[in-house]
Order: sequence, then C-alpha cells, then structure tokens
Amino acid sequence: MSPRNSVLETRHTRRRILDRSLAIASAEGLEGLTIGRLATDLGMSKAGVLGHFGTKETLQLAVVDAAAELFNEEVPQRVRDVPLGLPRLRALCEAWVSHLERGVLPGGCFFTAAATEFDGREGPVRDAIAGLNTLWQRDLRLHVQRAIAAGDLPGDTDPDQFIYDIVGIMLALNHFQQLQHDPLATSRARRALTRLLPA
Amino acid sequence: MSPRNSVLETRHTRRRILDRSLAIASAEGLEGLTIGRLATDLGMSKAGVLGHFGTKETLQLAVVDAAAELFNEEVPQRVRDVPLGLPRLRALCEAWVSHLERGVLPGGCFFTAAATEFDGREGPVRDAIAGLNTLWQRDLRLHVQRAIAAGDLPGDTDPDQFIYDIVGIMLALNHFQQLQHDPLATSRARRALTRLLPA
Repeated sequence: MSPRNSVLETRHTRRRILDRSLAIASAEGLEGLTIGRLATDLGMSKAGVLGHFGTKETLQLAVVDAAAELFNEEVPQRVRDVPLGLPRLRALCEAWVSHLERGVLPGGCFFTAAATEFDGREGPVRDAIAGLNTLWQRDLRLHVQRAIAAGDLPGDTDPDQFIYDIVGIMLALNHFQQLQHDPLATSRARRALTRLLPA
Repeated sequence: MSPRNSVLETRHTRRRILDRSLAIASAEGLEGLTIGRLATDLGMSKAGVLGHFGTKETLQLAVVDAAAELFNEEVPQRVRDVPLGLPRLRALCEAWVSHLERGVLPGGCFFTAAATEFDGREGPVRDAIAGLNTLWQRDLRLHVQRAIAAGDLPGDTDPDQFIYDIVGIMLALNHFQQLQHDPLATSRARRALTRLLPA
C-alpha cells in the first residue's frame, strides 16, 4: 500500500468506526460503546479499533464531535440561506424536527441521550456535551434577540425563557417518539412551535 | 437470630440496596448499577447483594418500582387533598417542580434518565419505564379533561397537546438543572407552567 493510500484507508476506517459508534451511542448511550462491540460489528480486531482512538474516552469525545458535525449538516447548514431573526429561527426549528422525524440516527436525538447519560458525571465528555449545548442555545438566542429587535417578537419577550420553551418542545418530541413510539409526536412539536413562533 | 428478626433484617437490607441503587441510577443510569459497585458502596459481599435480587435485570426492575414509589410519595400523594381538575393539575405540576428543585435524587429526575437510557432497547425494563410514563400521563390527562369540562380550560384545548407541553416543560427543567446547572431553571419552569395553567 502506498503512503497516500494508507492515509486514505486510515481516514476511511476511522469514519466507519465513528458512523457505527454514533448509531450505537444514540440508541444505547456512550457507555454502551465498547471496543469489543465495535470490533465485532465492524469485523475488525479490538487492537484495530483501539489503534484509531487509544482509549474509550478519546473515542467518546470523537463521537461527540461527529454528532455535532452531523447536527450541523442536518440543521444549521440546511437553512443557512434563510434570513436572520424569526425566519431563521423558524427554519432552524423545522429542520430540527425534520432531523428527528426522518430518524437519521436509530436512537433519536444523540445529544438528548448523551446529556442525560453524562449530566450526573464529571470530566471531558460531560464538558464537551454541555459546551455544545450552550453554543447551540446561544445561536438560537441570537435569532430570538434579532427577532425582538425587528419587532417580529413582542418587546417583552425573555430570550432565555424562549430558549427554555424551544428546548422543552424538542425534548418532548424525542421523549414521545422514542419512548412511546407516538406517531403524532412530530405534529405536536410543530403545533407547539407554531404557537411560539407566529408566522 | 429469630425468624422474625431475620425477615426484618432482610427487608432492611433490601431497602438499603434499593436506596443506594436509586441514587446511583439517577446519576449514572441503570446500566451503571453493577453488583460489584453496590457491594463496595454498602460494605456487603457481591453474593449478599445478588442474594436479594438474583440478576441485574431483577435489580433494575426493583429500582424502577422503587423510583415509582418515591415519585408517588413526592408528587401525587402530597397533593391528594387538592380539588380535582385544574387546581389538582396545578398542584401536581408544582409538586413535580419542587421534587426536582429539592434535589431529592442526586442525578435529578430518575425517569428522564431511565427513559433516555432504555428508549432505544427492548425488554422488561424498557416496558416498565414506558408503562409508568403512560400511566402518569393518563392521570394528568384526566385532570386536563376535568378542567375543560368545568370550563377552567378553553373548550378547544387538546388534552394530548397539553400533556405534551407539560412534559416538555419538565424535561427542560431537568435538562437546564442537571446539564447546565442553571440556577434559574426552576423559575423558568414555573413561568412556563403558569402560562399554561392560568390561575
């Protein structure tokens, strides 16, 4: 194998491990992600998997990064041409609902699963998950503030309360969809969002 | 030891194992609950812990039951004298917020953690968690329906949408409290509930 092919091969294998890890972690949690399980699923040796990530924690952090990249492609990137403020906020929420509606990951929202799994612990994985949540909510808040400034939302709107409400609607969508297999969950999420974000 | 003392001793030990299990599971999940960990924490032998529950799954199911009992004492039982319908619904939601506000379990809401941990799996533990969620939401729905019938909520209120909204508010409370350590999370939950359940 030439050096160039070897680099491509390494990147390809790393990608395969991360894709499989994302699917497992969304359904069974980041702790359900064992080197042995990945090796069996991918027909690799344990040493082969470990060679790419070193430790379980390094793998978990790489999976959190991969989940953030997927979410970024699925939600903000899809609506980057929509005008800022209320239109963008509506488009972001609709892309978020659609991401869960299409069942992109078998276990639903990766970050909901990872957040409840790690919120009682300490360490770099918890910090990465909390940090990404904070960044995403800050992005949403900027659009709420812009919508208020433009007069598209009432002047007395509390941006933090608004974010709280949006997060609740999305967490409930994941809950009713994943735990109760409720076929009306996405339409309830859209109704709640429409009430919050008037046309 | 007399037979009577032995029975009491067995019940007491079982209770100690369950209390410790609830604390661990609320913070680290039901899968974080290993027989070895419990034995170390409680100064017992592994055989001693296993003798009370047989298998990890039996233990997990007993912990789910214990969590349901705790929730029942903390929320419905506390407000059982409040009139049915809207007043009871408001009191139930306030008791639920207060339960999380007081940090009764170190990891926050047991059922939020357990639901996201098991919603991607199959089996009796998942079924128990989903079943208890369904029962609790049915109780809430009965009070929504009674409030509509009494004219305390608008006649066009959709009870299922209403339950969706309440569940979202409570999931967001747990999220902001546990992951973000947000000191304003409970006041945001109360504001959202006041808007939904007018005085």
